Amino acid sequence: MTIVKDIEWHKGMKVTELLKAIGSCGFQGVELFKAVECITKMKREGAKIYLTFTSNMATSGLRGFFAQLIKLKMADVVITTVGSIEEDIMKAMGEEFHIGNYSADDVGLHEKGMNRVGNLLIRNESYERFEAYMQEILPKLYEKKKRYSVSEMLREIGLMLNDEKSILYQAAKNNVPIFCPAITDGAFGFHLFMFQQDHKDFIVDVVEDFANLIFSSSHDEKKGIIALGGGVAKHHAILGTLLNGGADYAVYMTTAHEYSGSLSGATTREAKSWGKIKDSADAVTVIGEVSITFPLAMFTALDILSEEGLI
Amino acid sequence: MTIVKDIEWHKGMKVTELLKAIGSCGFQGVELFKAVECITKMKREGAKIYLTFTSNMATSGLRGFFAQLIKLKMADVVITTVGSIEEDIMKAMGEEFHIGNYSADDVGLHEKGMNRVGNLLIRNESYERFEAYMQEILPKLYEKKKRYSVSEMLREIGLMLNDEKSILYQAAKNNVPIFCPAITDGAFGFHLFMFQQDHKDFIVDVVEDFANLIFSSSHDEKKGIIALGGGVAKHHAILGTLLNGGADYAVYMTTAHEYSGSLSGATTREAKSWGKIKDSADAVTVIGEVSITFPLAMFTALDILSEEGLI
Amino acid sequence: MTIVKDIEWHKGMKVTELLKAIGSCGFQGVELFKAVECITKMKREGAKIYLTFTSNMATSGLRGFFAQLIKLKMADVVITTVGSIEEDIMKAMGEEFHIGNYSADDVGLHEKGMNRVGNLLIRNESYERFEAYMQEILPKLYEKKKRYSVSEMLREIGLMLNDEKSILYQAAKNNVPIFCPAITDGAFGFHLFMFQQDHKDFIVDVVEDFANLIFSSSHDEKKGIIALGGGVAKHHAILGTLLNGGADYAVYMTTAHEYSGSLSGATTREAKSWGKIKDSADAVTVIGEVSITFPLAMFTALDILSEEGLI
Amino acid sequence: MTIVKDIEWHKGMKVTELLKAIGSCGFQGVELFKAVECITKMKREGAKIYLTFTSNMATSGLRGFFAQLIKLKMADVVITTVGSIEEDIMKAMGEEFHIGNYSADDVGLHEKGMNRVGNLLIRNESYERFEAYMQEILPKLYEKKKRYSVSEMLREIGLMLNDEKSILYQAAKNNVPIFCPAITDGAFGFHLFMFQQDHKDFIVDVVEDFANLIFSSSHDEKKGIIALGGGVAKHHAILGTLLNGGADYAVYMTTAHEYSGSLSGATTREAKSWGKIKDSADAVTVIGEVSITFPLAMFTALDILSEEGLI
Repeated sequence: MTIVKDIEWHKGMKVTELLKAIGSCGFQGVELFKAVECITKMKREGAKIYLTFTSNMATSGLRGFFAQLIKLKMADVVITTVGSIEEDIMKAMGEEFHIGNYSADDVGLHEKGMNRVGNLLIRNESYERFEAYMQEILPKLYEKKKRYSVSEMLREIGLMLNDEKSILYQAAKNNVPIFCPAITDGAFGFHLFMFQQDHKDFIVDVVEDFANLIFSSSHDEKKGIIALGGGVAKHHAILGTLLNGGADYAVYMTTAHEYSGSLSGATTREAKSWGKIKDSADAVTVIGEVSITFPLAMFTALDILSEEGLI
Repeated sequence: MTIVKDIEWHKGMKVTELLKAIGSCGFQGVELFKAVECITKMKREGAKIYLTFTSNMATSGLRGFFAQLIKLKMADVVITTVGSIEEDIMKAMGEEFHIGNYSADDVGLHEKGMNRVGNLLIRNESYERFEAYMQEILPKLYEKKKRYSVSEMLREIGLMLNDEKSILYQAAKNNVPIFCPAITDGAFGFHLFMFQQDHKDFIVDVVEDFANLIFSSSHDEKKGIIALGGGVAKHHAILGTLLNGGADYAVYMTTAHEYSGSLSGATTREAKSWGKIKDSADAVTVIGEVSITFPLAMFTALDILSEEGLI
Repeated sequence: MTIVKDIEWHKGMKVTELLKAIGSCGFQGVELFKAVECITKMKREGAKIYLTFTSNMATSGLRGFFAQLIKLKMADVVITTVGSIEEDIMKAMGEEFHIGNYSADDVGLHEKGMNRVGNLLIRNESYERFEAYMQEILPKLYEKKKRYSVSEMLREIGLMLNDEKSILYQAAKNNVPIFCPAITDGAFGFHLFMFQQDHKDFIVDVVEDFANLIFSSSHDEKKGIIALGGGVAKHHAILGTLLNGGADYAVYMTTAHEYSGSLSGATTREAKSWGKIKDSADAVTVIGEVSITFPLAMFTALDILSEEGLI
Repeated sequence: MTIVKDIEWHKGMKVTELLKAIGSCGFQGVELFKAVECITKMKREGAKIYLTFTSNMATSGLRGFFAQLIKLKMADVVITTVGSIEEDIMKAMGEEFHIGNYSADDVGLHEKGMNRVGNLLIRNESYERFEAYMQEILPKLYEKKKRYSVSEMLREIGLMLNDEKSILYQAAKNNVPIFCPAITDGAFGFHLFMFQQDHKDFIVDVVEDFANLIFSSSHDEKKGIIALGGGVAKHHAILGTLLNGGADYAVYMTTAHEYSGSLSGATTREAKSWGKIKDSADAVTVIGEVSITFPLAMFTALDILSEEGLI
């Protein structure tokens, strides 16, 4: 059995050193280090990695890191909600988001045209910019084809963007599909609807994208899930891998708890009852807010993998 | 200012009495009573009510209560995730779910063909029964039409079911649309995909359903949201009402917290920065698990509304 | 295995009916009903019941309910933190607390002499009244004796109060000891300190109270814990029963989670590793805010026990 | 307003670099960086620093880090619960704790004499060793004096230990008082009780320690609180500084939430209504498990302070 070790600071410590220290300290630090080990193992074993996140994470500066991870071949499939798509595009067009605070005067913000996401702020102008962009590209997409699966359409958009830090751009460049099972649940959906009003033969085919999800891996391949937060993004990754025999590796990072029975709080342990994760799988659940836990774990994993020449 | 009142038990108290007592006791009891007041006000003012819930709630016995609420005209629009649809159908076909426990042996459950959702259990047989049903009805739907919006398809299925306690059945009977923005994120999606393999002209049109969502209310109508849990269901109700000027009433019941910036934990206060909820709206956030908080609040609201002849 | 049953409302339902309904509905409702069963069993089996709560609960209207429970012989030992003592005394002197809201302007409240506890408010005047009372009674206590254990001192104070809804009053009247292991952690401590400055031989003997805790039950007696919230109150009840062989029954109601390793979030399952709760014990953990969960469960338990003639 | 910046990994990043990156990324990362700024400011301004933690943190490897912080003059006053004292002593005597897991078989652990604290394990032997030690030192303490305040007694014990990584040892060496307002709430309390049975004139004077708490700082001095977790330790620091005019700086790191009205979840914002924290104070609340958040923030603060020659 591993012994609990006292943590000690020395000047200028590296992230990897810190992670190792908290890995034998206790509680979630221990689980976080297990997450690092699970992620490095996924990569070493050549598993297909499904990375999922919720749209608030794309509101935050994790957005550029997700793009970097795709570039580094640390994600083979990306699954998210439509807010991520919208905000990635806004940022790719140069829009900037701001840091506010949790106890802001919300009525006052509304009057100033600021929209709050926790302690972050998005201006109305960013949505207007997004609208203009959608009005520009939808006709182009329509010209090419009348019927798109979601991931196909997102790939086309990614190819039109020109921002190294964009999730859509990197995904398109690196042949990583982006699945977004609830594509209409946001401003994106509204613009699709407006366009379809005048172009009834324009079809967004979510069922076809299910085929793409299934064929994104095979029974024979090893599969790993890194699910940040919950919701349909997490569930879709679980579903996609389950249909190919279940995941071999799974890291869930979440602030939700299992007592409500929600999928967002469902643990990797529960997943085994469904065969979602193989009985023998390496599986870790870390409770904590991902703007802290994910960079900490992933920076360490990247340091280790880089050392081994794997990225 | 309201005074904190000591609670006292007497024999055989009614739910409504309990709710009033905890309403001037403190903490979440106070918020729960505000939720009752907000819900009764929605109904009195003739607001269009958007009821949203996550699929684990349909796994639980809340499913029959949701059906009853639709029958009682307490929900004009229903929004949920696809697990709810699947499990409502399973139950309508006579499948039974069981109560287990949170610390079950998950590998053992998997071997026995039991799937765990918190402290509830679903047998593999229930999924097989669902599969058989889908294989039976999809050709019938296809015969009628080739292109369906999601809510239209769910309505057709509801009309074919024969269970007073079914959400789909009551929704269909009472002309209440059910929106499910991520319709493919479950077994339902898999069966749609299988069917489409041989019927390429079969289309599930999610964009058209956005039109249905927008036209489900108007700028002039009062609108209320009752969001149980978070995720796309909650977000979709907010979006649908926002596009018609924002909600006049909102009750959020959730176990999530705002510190992560997730939509699931977003409060009614934050919603005001977006105009999602009008600045002047009655809006309440109750933190707690809905299998307890929702029946407690809603039974009380129904008692009050029934007394007033409104249901 | 128990089957999940659909919940249905009918007019004028009783609390006990609601509780039974949610008891076979799912998630925390199931656990809450188990808590009812565990509590009724404690009483039927004649167990010594240790009731613990944190001081915010005495700020709320649960205070009068705790007093009622003592009167009904539903608590044989009470353990809490010193804020509960202070606020029980304030209320016994006629002070009233008010309901505010979580997102109040705290600087503004401070200027108005209002102190916030979640969504409750205590005026500075209540503390001044408490101070005057302490200055009045400490000399009286000193006259009688120079060295007090904490529970002994609280009993003396209880005998001097005259309020049926007071925890201290009912405890004193019914020979129920109140333990408060951190008696100096509040205004009470400050007044003890002021008094001791001029009366060096005045001693509050916390070690002697440990004897009282141990002798509050025996190895042979059955013992039950009802712990509301966490902290030293919960821990002290566990410790007191552990030293007499461990509890036979335990109900933990809390908003804390086990992932932090804190005692507040520690489950009844973890307690078994310590022998704090017997391996065979009936033990239930309910996650939720107690201003809702506790009255709901306890009112039901009282209805059942009253039916059986046990209270 | 600060702009949200995309995070980017590069090889071998330092903790301080990571912290700065997440500080302009969003959500709790932003708050964590504010915590770093608040801590460094406390030190720069020469504030008296009150460090509080709960006993599970001393079970973990944070124990050695707390000792190091005392040595580095980063804590002028320490407040904790008695479990910390006991476990610090056990470790000082060479006992080792182990890493287990949250879903362990607790009945099995009990049979093996292992006690679980989240995912950590303490053997029965460690408690036996502690007992032997207490039986050895209590007579020595008694020989010297008959009446001790708690902090005085802990100082005496610290002087007898010989472990650089011990909290008690470093506190004694560096004249840092350790307050433990509920000194009897643990095995320590039991041993005090056993000793007092035969030495009735042996007195642990908690009221006198209140004087020590008050005199641990003055109205004129700047005061800062670093509260890890909640409970009496956090409350006692707030109380001690409040009596001297309120804190100028406060960092609360916790997993608890304010919705329950508990002190553990009370925010620095609420504290302003009480004057616990000055209206103008720098105050930060970080939600997250401290085995991750605290080393991350404190290592960074130490790097910065070391750079400035302040430690």
